[in-house]
Amino acid sequence: MAAEIVNPRSDGTTDQDGGAEPLDSFDPAFALHRGGKMAVQATVPVRDKDDLSLAYTPGVARVCTAIAETPELVNDYTWKSNVVAVVTDGTAVLGLGDIGPQASLPVMEGKAILFKQFGGVDAVPIALDCTDVDDIVETVVRLAPSFGGVNLEDISAPRCFEIERRLQERLDIPVFHDDQHGTAVVTLAALRNAARLSGREIGQLRAVISGAGAAGVAIARMLVEAGIGDVAVADRKGVVSADREDLTPVKRELAGFTNKAGVTGPLEDALAGADVFIGVSGGTVSEDAVASMAEGAFVFAMANPDPEVHPDVAHKYAAVVATGRSDFPNQINNVLAFPGIFAGALQVRATRITEGMKIAAAEALASVVGDDLAADYVIPSPFDERVAPAVTAAVAAAARAEGVARR
Amino acid sequence: MAAEIVNPRSDGTTDQDGGAEPLDSFDPAFALHRGGKMAVQATVPVRDKDDLSLAYTPGVARVCTAIAETPELVNDYTWKSNVVAVVTDGTAVLGLGDIGPQASLPVMEGKAILFKQFGGVDAVPIALDCTDVDDIVETVVRLAPSFGGVNLEDISAPRCFEIERRLQERLDIPVFHDDQHGTAVVTLAALRNAARLSGREIGQLRAVISGAGAAGVAIARMLVEAGIGDVAVADRKGVVSADREDLTPVKRELAGFTNKAGVTGPLEDALAGADVFIGVSGGTVSEDAVASMAEGAFVFAMANPDPEVHPDVAHKYAAVVATGRSDFPNQINNVLAFPGIFAGALQVRATRITEGMKIAAAEALASVVGDDLAADYVIPSPFDERVAPAVTAAVAAAARAEGVARR
Repeated sequence: MAAEIVNPRSDGTTDQDGGAEPLDSFDPAFALHRGGKMAVQATVPVRDKDDLSLAYTPGVARVCTAIAETPELVNDYTWKSNVVAVVTDGTAVLGLGDIGPQASLPVMEGKAILFKQFGGVDAVPIALDCTDVDDIVETVVRLAPSFGGVNLEDISAPRCFEIERRLQERLDIPVFHDDQHGTAVVTLAALRNAARLSGREIGQLRAVISGAGAAGVAIARMLVEAGIGDVAVADRKGVVSADREDLTPVKRELAGFTNKAGVTGPLEDALAGADVFIGVSGGTVSEDAVASMAEGAFVFAMANPDPEVHPDVAHKYAAVVATGRSDFPNQINNVLAFPGIFAGALQVRATRITEGMKIAAAEALASVVGDDLAADYVIPSPFDERVAPAVTAAVAAAARAEGVARR
Repeated sequence: MAAEIVNPRSDGTTDQDGGAEPLDSFDPAFALHRGGKMAVQATVPVRDKDDLSLAYTPGVARVCTAIAETPELVNDYTWKSNVVAVVTDGTAVLGLGDIGPQASLPVMEGKAILFKQFGGVDAVPIALDCTDVDDIVETVVRLAPSFGGVNLEDISAPRCFEIERRLQERLDIPVFHDDQHGTAVVTLAALRNAARLSGREIGQLRAVISGAGAAGVAIARMLVEAGIGDVAVADRKGVVSADREDLTPVKRELAGFTNKAGVTGPLEDALAGADVFIGVSGGTVSEDAVASMAEGAFVFAMANPDPEVHPDVAHKYAAVVATGRSDFPNQINNVLAFPGIFAGALQVRATRITEGMKIAAAEALASVVGDDLAADYVIPSPFDERVAPAVTAAVAAAARAEGVARR
């Protein structure tokens, strides 16, 4: 679709009167999104009645009968094995919060086209008109026969944890909450390369995560899985520690496997002497707190559009700085992970996406940087064409190694 | 996708041993369906970070915010207003019956590509893993924010009637059970032209329908709506009449507005002197019964693949013969209706598909035949390129006339 300008007026103003479009018609985002960003296409011809008799009745009946007799053939003779449902309830959309299912659709469509563009994976936006955990789980279970995988997106914490866990238990296809695991995979890849650049091992590092939502919890889990020296997670009330009385079940669990040092109090206190800051909070961190970190620290200030600390400030103290923004070096962008992770999982028809597959994805992503490793290049560009194939291959191999591949 | 032959063997046999594919690899239907029949495509470019910053974050946030503030903008800035969910539970698939959701997927994909090919409408197969009426209704209501319309498909009667009615009440987008209404629209179009050919009015005709399932009930309703002289519907136990004790609620309702003549007994008795036979039963009708019909009768024997009476036999007695098969003249094929009906409804963002819109679709479809009307040409070919635009325009105009259009 060509970028079409909506309601251009020769006097350079926009028509704000009487229409159903109270928005800036010259904003190129609106022009681009006009009519949506995706379409369906047939991959077989339907030119004449012979085509029709094969693609549809009567020929299709023989394919249906074969699947009814041998259910796994559904993966060979339909698009199921290459299509992912991008499921949201619209409760935690970008930094916008609970804007509801319809307003979330532009993001879900965007996600769908990124799946296709970067991973060759077909994806369908499914924005649900329900927010109850039981309702969401039941709905996705009922939808599952049509899809080869489920990407959960922009569902608020802590509901997202239970929804993902229950769906993984109920379904035999991959269920992956990208806000958690996609972010964690890319963060770990960047951290591995930052450590390599500075000649350190992950096990020597003490990290502090600001934010105990979907991303913060998943990053903490993954860093522990990857052998981090220590990691503490802070929410708005301070560092999550076992002595706190106000913890949700998820944060209580978090307190059990993080913060070996037993840090308590505000985030800033935890940062003193820390090697790594990972911001996924949307909050801010003072320059003094960054200055208090250990020599050669890594600062990943990933809040969007406003990083927790400006990269120019962070660079005064840190050896490696990363953000979530495309206009600074070292962008921690989920699109580096989710297309290849699903492509690899679908390729081998994995029943789930394991920790080992995520670790493999992070290692493959880190390895793309290779000998070009530098302080401003610890993570590849989303447009590096080596990324998705490397992640796909690593995830498929890990699925086989972990015994969750079906072929 | 090029038609790919699966597992061809040079000795002309197929490998039936040990594999997961116990099927005839030389059947061209399997070759065609390999890998599925559809894909998703992006309609906007994602070539570089500037594209990404418009199609996805941060640009997409402005579009989301606009929709959150002005919900109807979802139709302008997402694919919602051009995408239909093709929903089934797999309980009444073709003539195969209750084969379940996964085995129904090849049909739903076929339907989806026909929507695209003939109507330019995007469509997504949604095969549900539930058969309870409440569960199906709730699930589709929860999915609805993502779709501009719902095409119900291959859901068994009488559940299909309640599911459609309740969804129409709950949703403000078109909900259309094609097995009912698509079939009825095309049948009415063929009947109008057959009547025109013989210089008669619909109101002069007495019709008999064999089959009181989804299609039979909908055809009866539509013929009455269109002013048929009289219509009787027969199920396996004979003509549906008010004195029968064994009627389901739907058939009891049917008895109230059909069969003015008060015919009772077997289908064959009703056919004596009848002007029109419409077969949607999968059963058979004897030559004697066809011979007993009125002079210049119309026989629409639409069971597939075996018509209720062979066209060669029907031609001995009837003035016009139609079937559901592509290898005889006058094929009553739903693809003549549903793409244009949805395209027209979506074009004007209709809140529902009314009786008037269906009648308009039938009239538009009939009118395509024009002056070429003949006994073997009362209905156009599915590949006649005039069909979908004519139906689309007529349905959009009818939606406006009936006050259900939103633009």
